[in-house]
Amino acid sequence: MTYRIFHMQASGNCWKPRVALHQLGHAFELIDVDIMTGETRTEAYLAMNPNGRVPLLQLPDGRYLAESNAMLIHLAEGTPLMPEDAYDRALAFQWMFFEQYSHEPYIAVARYWRHLEGKEPPEAVPGQIEERGNAALAVMDGRLAASPFFAGDAYSIADIALYAYTHVADEGGFSLEPYPHVRAWLERVEATPRFVGMDWRPD
Amino acid sequence: MTYRIFHMQASGNCWKPRVALHQLGHAFELIDVDIMTGETRTEAYLAMNPNGRVPLLQLPDGRYLAESNAMLIHLAEGTPLMPEDAYDRALAFQWMFFEQYSHEPYIAVARYWRHLEGKEPPEAVPGQIEERGNAALAVMDGRLAASPFFAGDAYSIADIALYAYTHVADEGGFSLEPYPHVRAWLERVEATPRFVGMDWRPD
Repeated sequence: MTYRIFHMQASGNCWKPRVALHQLGHAFELIDVDIMTGETRTEAYLAMNPNGRVPLLQLPDGRYLAESNAMLIHLAEGTPLMPEDAYDRALAFQWMFFEQYSHEPYIAVARYWRHLEGKEPPEAVPGQIEERGNAALAVMDGRLAASPFFAGDAYSIADIALYAYTHVADEGGFSLEPYPHVRAWLERVEATPRFVGMDWRPD
Repeated sequence: MTYRIFHMQASGNCWKPRVALHQLGHAFELIDVDIMTGETRTEAYLAMNPNGRVPLLQLPDGRYLAESNAMLIHLAEGTPLMPEDAYDRALAFQWMFFEQYSHEPYIAVARYWRHLEGKEPPEAVPGQIEERGNAALAVMDGRLAASPFFAGDAYSIADIALYAYTHVADEGGFSLEPYPHVRAWLERVEATPRFVGMDWRPD
């Protein structure tokens, strides 16, 4: 058996294991799951992933793994996508948790509502999504002013995690114009060997 | 130099590196930082952690590491707190990202507002915090019905990550009464060697 990803093509979180598997030279199959029509909430799906989300990775031995950033760490272990130095590795993890806690809930959620649902995102505190999303982009810009990639001198899974929704931030209503280091880094990521974008699928 | 943690005693995220360092037998110093009075937003603090959050770990070599779960992974590498088996390790990461994305934003945020601020949490969709927090607890209860600890048979950093706010879920208005496997697991965590709770500080 090979790797399988239960995914939605337009999801940045689902792009992460696609690009990592491709850059690492692994073949894989895609199973399309439409979160908009409740396909992650069926009994059969919840038996595979009780948290009811995509992506879900099925390993060659048949076992399942949820959480896109956990997939990246698992796939990268012992490969050039994982920093060798212990501190650089810790920084990769730091930026991956930053992505899920301080970036995705604003930038990806705004994109979900505006781009996929065609509605304004519900907000408890008006303006908070814009403020916190821009705060995350500013923190990224500061890091990238000092380092070519998030975990140091080399491209790693931390860059994959943060590229996912940053490169489509405009679809959530965020401009990257104030963040020149972020824009230059997007180009560096896209220039890495065997890079594939969000629309790509294996044959 | 030893480890230093910039922390707030009452924060579950800050408890994570305290208990891990203690269980691993490392000495460390605590520097109290009051998030309620803006101490994470000063120029001096932002120079150490541009994302302006606690905890912040200073390593013995003087370098800084943010994100509580990244600290746990870094500290646990090569110790019994990190599963040896590659799949169990991937599950530990899976549950740690689950904690930061599907658990903390509801259970810890509710506790922050109700317990620390003494106010009801602002909500874009009324009832969403209660619904999503309980969904996270139900997913945990399902896992713990099948396994004594989150990453398998042994206590790991995934248990530390999820214990942090689960054991004070009542302070956020969540009852653990419907989750017997979660309640039994809290006791298993508390019975691990050199376990210390949220109020503990080194001499």
